[in-house]
Amino acid sequence: MTPNKDLTGHKLLVITPTDLNPEYLEHLHSQFPGLKVVHSKFDPWRSVGLPPDVSDDDWKTVTILLTGPKFPTREQAPNLQLVQLQSAGANYILDNPLFKDTKIPFCTANGVHGPPISEWVICTYLAHQHRIPRFLDNMKEGKWDSEHGSDAPDIQDAVSQRVGILGYGSIGRQVARVATAMGMEVYAYTNRPRPTPESRHDDSYYVPGLGDPEGVLPSKWFSGTKPEEVDEFLSSGLDLLVLAVPLTPQTRGMIAAPQFKLLAGKKTYVTNIGRGPVVNTDDLMTALDEGWIRGAALDVTDPEPLPKEHPLWHKRNLIITPHVSGNSSSYGPRLLAILDINLKRLSEGKDFINSVSRKRGY
Amino acid sequence: MTPNKDLTGHKLLVITPTDLNPEYLEHLHSQFPGLKVVHSKFDPWRSVGLPPDVSDDDWKTVTILLTGPKFPTREQAPNLQLVQLQSAGANYILDNPLFKDTKIPFCTANGVHGPPISEWVICTYLAHQHRIPRFLDNMKEGKWDSEHGSDAPDIQDAVSQRVGILGYGSIGRQVARVATAMGMEVYAYTNRPRPTPESRHDDSYYVPGLGDPEGVLPSKWFSGTKPEEVDEFLSSGLDLLVLAVPLTPQTRGMIAAPQFKLLAGKKTYVTNIGRGPVVNTDDLMTALDEGWIRGAALDVTDPEPLPKEHPLWHKRNLIITPHVSGNSSSYGPRLLAILDINLKRLSEGKDFINSVSRKRGY
Repeated sequence: MTPNKDLTGHKLLVITPTDLNPEYLEHLHSQFPGLKVVHSKFDPWRSVGLPPDVSDDDWKTVTILLTGPKFPTREQAPNLQLVQLQSAGANYILDNPLFKDTKIPFCTANGVHGPPISEWVICTYLAHQHRIPRFLDNMKEGKWDSEHGSDAPDIQDAVSQRVGILGYGSIGRQVARVATAMGMEVYAYTNRPRPTPESRHDDSYYVPGLGDPEGVLPSKWFSGTKPEEVDEFLSSGLDLLVLAVPLTPQTRGMIAAPQFKLLAGKKTYVTNIGRGPVVNTDDLMTALDEGWIRGAALDVTDPEPLPKEHPLWHKRNLIITPHVSGNSSSYGPRLLAILDINLKRLSEGKDFINSVSRKRGY
Repeated sequence: MTPNKDLTGHKLLVITPTDLNPEYLEHLHSQFPGLKVVHSKFDPWRSVGLPPDVSDDDWKTVTILLTGPKFPTREQAPNLQLVQLQSAGANYILDNPLFKDTKIPFCTANGVHGPPISEWVICTYLAHQHRIPRFLDNMKEGKWDSEHGSDAPDIQDAVSQRVGILGYGSIGRQVARVATAMGMEVYAYTNRPRPTPESRHDDSYYVPGLGDPEGVLPSKWFSGTKPEEVDEFLSSGLDLLVLAVPLTPQTRGMIAAPQFKLLAGKKTYVTNIGRGPVVNTDDLMTALDEGWIRGAALDVTDPEPLPKEHPLWHKRNLIITPHVSGNSSSYGPRLLAILDINLKRLSEGKDFINSVSRKRGY
């Protein structure tokens, strides 16, 4: 790509359910004086078809598109050079001809969820370790009770504990940053091997100063796609296991009874912020009942939503939240920060961040 | 002091309610081959007088004493050169002749509480921000409800939020480390002004790699002992206020209605891990009822224990725990790590860490 500092001749079409912040528009104009910006107030997630207020002429001249899961055809938008998605996941583009049959770069919002979800992970683990749910229950009865039950172990703080992060991406890397600050040791698991410092880099978006884009925090790296490779990781003496993998045929049901038994030595606390079916729910209930694990935190379940009468709700040492860990009032500003970076890269003729690989499909 | 690498001629008397770990004894012998170690299994907190199994001859030859609030006279232990206390606080030594009338260094266990209490502070704040108490209640009813009430704001993650730490000691500095890793900005408040980099150092014990012993994490420092100086700090736009001051005539009731009103602009979340009477309980209840603050977390209360029928138990947006935030199974090992450092400093003729100032009284 050739540099084009002002983005002269470019037209950005923004399709969002909310109004565009006038300050952001001003910022775009001052950064890229040549860029035309068109906004269509339209919910690409909940509406059918394309926004009715975008004219054929607009589509013809659009070069950059910010949208959700609604796309024009290649013929409608012949000048498109960049599609910036509003979601961190991109499953829905894989079968769309605009992605499948072209080479137009599609970029995700990967990285926007790192801060809120990592906070959720750290919070639920500490809440379990420091017995916060029990104290909240005691409050309802006005009960000041600082004694542990005689069968309860002392409170263990996180110093020198070990967290294993299965799926060391933008969320896992921010978990690693906070865990390290608390004195924890970090083990990382990735699909592909990461034997060299360079291979440990992650080029997706990070809030400046956060995460572990260089991949320097883990003291040990594991990798692979075979069950025995995952089992080796699960046997590595983890106090906390964070499941941060997408749902694929390989990850479906990957944490079941045999894996929970591997965790029994350390009574690992299991946190799932990936997708519910990564964990076998029946086996999780057994693991909690049998005390193979010290507890679990689930922001995702299988089935989801979890029905009212499901026995999982009432297991001990469990925290369930209804798929909210990624919620954050900073979603929008972070998405625009990613768009900014990619506009700058376009203007400099450089590669984009968060670009979806057509080979890997993410 | 002159160096004495092997601590030849020294005798350490350890008074603890539990057995001494044989591995630790071996470690002491290999580090300091000249050091004699005597252990008396005795609870200096709950027993009266001195341990009956320590002979007059032992007292006469003891040079180093590890104990709680029970001390010999100067005449009984004429060779004492170092008293290592088992507690982080040292109020109880101030009137004891062995402290008052001698120059023997007394060292505290200051620093052992940094990890567990900082975890408690971070956990309770994140739990409030991410609505964990509400989701725990929903679990009891099998209720999958991801909607906020229409009056509830979006979930805000901690990035760019500001934490103000009133009392920037070993606990506050570890809060600062974790908060920084989450992307928060740190404001520090100390009694004495800290205008230079050197003045910001803290020489107390830290778990290696944790805390902020150099004082480099805060972006702004406040100080003073006058109410108007504290008020200036409280008006600095804090999302989270951490009260980590001891109870003194100056700090008693320092956070009352006028101070809560200063916090109303940002609806600061207030966390008290110092002492209950630092906060005026009636005014805290008003602040919660009126919505001047977004919530509060209390590990200490006034009165304490909080009586069953006290209305504070049932205020909204409040987390109370029964003075347990400092509990940790690592208390003992950390105390021995401090003793180790001070034995090494004795052997090298250097100043001790955590030494109580006879001028300041802490």
